[in-house]
Amino acid sequence: MTLYLIGMGLNDEKDITLKGLEIVKRSDKVYLENYTAIIHCKMENLERIYGKKVHLADRDLVEKKGGVLVDEASKGDVALLVVGDPVSATTHMDLLLRAARKGVKVEIVHNASILTAVGVVGLQLYKYGRTASIVFPQEGWDVHTPYDVVKDNKKAGLHTLCLLDIKTEEPSIEELRKETKNRGKPEKPRFMTVKQAIHALLDIEYKRKENIFTDETICIGCARLGSEKMKIRAGRAKELLAEDFGEPMHCLIVPGKLHFMEEEALELWKQ
Amino acid sequence: MTLYLIGMGLNDEKDITLKGLEIVKRSDKVYLENYTAIIHCKMENLERIYGKKVHLADRDLVEKKGGVLVDEASKGDVALLVVGDPVSATTHMDLLLRAARKGVKVEIVHNASILTAVGVVGLQLYKYGRTASIVFPQEGWDVHTPYDVVKDNKKAGLHTLCLLDIKTEEPSIEELRKETKNRGKPEKPRFMTVKQAIHALLDIEYKRKENIFTDETICIGCARLGSEKMKIRAGRAKELLAEDFGEPMHCLIVPGKLHFMEEEALELWKQ
Repeated sequence: MTLYLIGMGLNDEKDITLKGLEIVKRSDKVYLENYTAIIHCKMENLERIYGKKVHLADRDLVEKKGGVLVDEASKGDVALLVVGDPVSATTHMDLLLRAARKGVKVEIVHNASILTAVGVVGLQLYKYGRTASIVFPQEGWDVHTPYDVVKDNKKAGLHTLCLLDIKTEEPSIEELRKETKNRGKPEKPRFMTVKQAIHALLDIEYKRKENIFTDETICIGCARLGSEKMKIRAGRAKELLAEDFGEPMHCLIVPGKLHFMEEEALELWKQ
Repeated sequence: MTLYLIGMGLNDEKDITLKGLEIVKRSDKVYLENYTAIIHCKMENLERIYGKKVHLADRDLVEKKGGVLVDEASKGDVALLVVGDPVSATTHMDLLLRAARKGVKVEIVHNASILTAVGVVGLQLYKYGRTASIVFPQEGWDVHTPYDVVKDNKKAGLHTLCLLDIKTEEPSIEELRKETKNRGKPEKPRFMTVKQAIHALLDIEYKRKENIFTDETICIGCARLGSEKMKIRAGRAKELLAEDFGEPMHCLIVPGKLHFMEEEALELWKQ
């Protein structure tokens, strides 16, 4: 009679903790949340290791549908597997609140999150300011928030982690304008790349001209952190534009004031 | 021929990931770093689950002694178990750099960290500013940094996570003044409590009188996050002073501007 939110870590089926695995094995139903992030392995691998059928949980199931998950957890043990740490996305905190309101017990099994895994780059985590999000450009939107976050952080000497947009199974704006019953298939998942993120910041720089993020700005592009296939490169924005970071997920770091040990760490990622 | 830095997560022997466990099982030597944080279980439990002898690694072994760990890893596979995520403390990044300089391969297995586990409180992680550290008062020191961090974050509407001091196996200032060979036993581990942290901030407020952290300030005290025995309480500083948060580790959160969903989450932790 508990809703378990279980972190899966950053990469594949082996990133779950022993505690998380024990709970999955004894849960009545197991869901995998697959729209705020992706897991880099096949469902078969998950199901083989977990010894359980894993059901996909899309945004509709987690956020709408009158709290299906919460209802199910009032009758038995339900495990919702979440990539990263389950408390780092608003979505899952909302689910926790809905469960609390209905008197359903929630337990959380923490795991690695991109927010701390970026520590591998060598910039000290306590010197990061607010996290920025860079989203895909959308018709009628002109979002300068990430630029302002980088600006404020830089002014305070702090580093900025930019999380990059992911669109999984989202209907397009055009589709959303149609009546629900006439909507087509959702688009294929799209993951913003380091290159697209740099272009997004440069586009704002071009409009604002405040010299916050230019093609000379040193930054760090990361891909697939937490996996053996991770790639990290440090260099000027224009240099990183020429890099192919490969498969998702990517993120971008804009450093603030660098300590000499941080400088030394960045040397590891230059070419 | 690899130095593995393996995150153990926040609580006990079952918080390691399957990937971490596999590496521990096949490593030639296994160390547990036991001075930047503590694991809440007995060594026997670790050794039983890991099927391996686990050696304690104190500050001396990890930071000094000419890189014993790095040397050992140049001859075989060495696993250093670290509470939390291994890349969140400067110490381990320094180790990584020393290994890189000697051409020794380092692999990291990420895990949960307090920096993201605080998400369970319900304040959105991307709205945290810089992290503050509150240290035990020391003769001749008058550190206002955490107060200034809270001040800057508040001004920007951001939340502040205050990490609290831990002194494990450290010789006292008095002992450090003696010749090495005359030094006595290190002190017993000490962990700063929520109460001590609040007092530390109030002491600075008393001197600065900038109305940043008073006994009316709403804050959130946390203890043992990531364990079943976690305790979270939200309330005015003076109310939290009356709370017993029990066993370590504790941390303190000073919220910035609250979104209504965050307000609602905090209600869960009021009494």
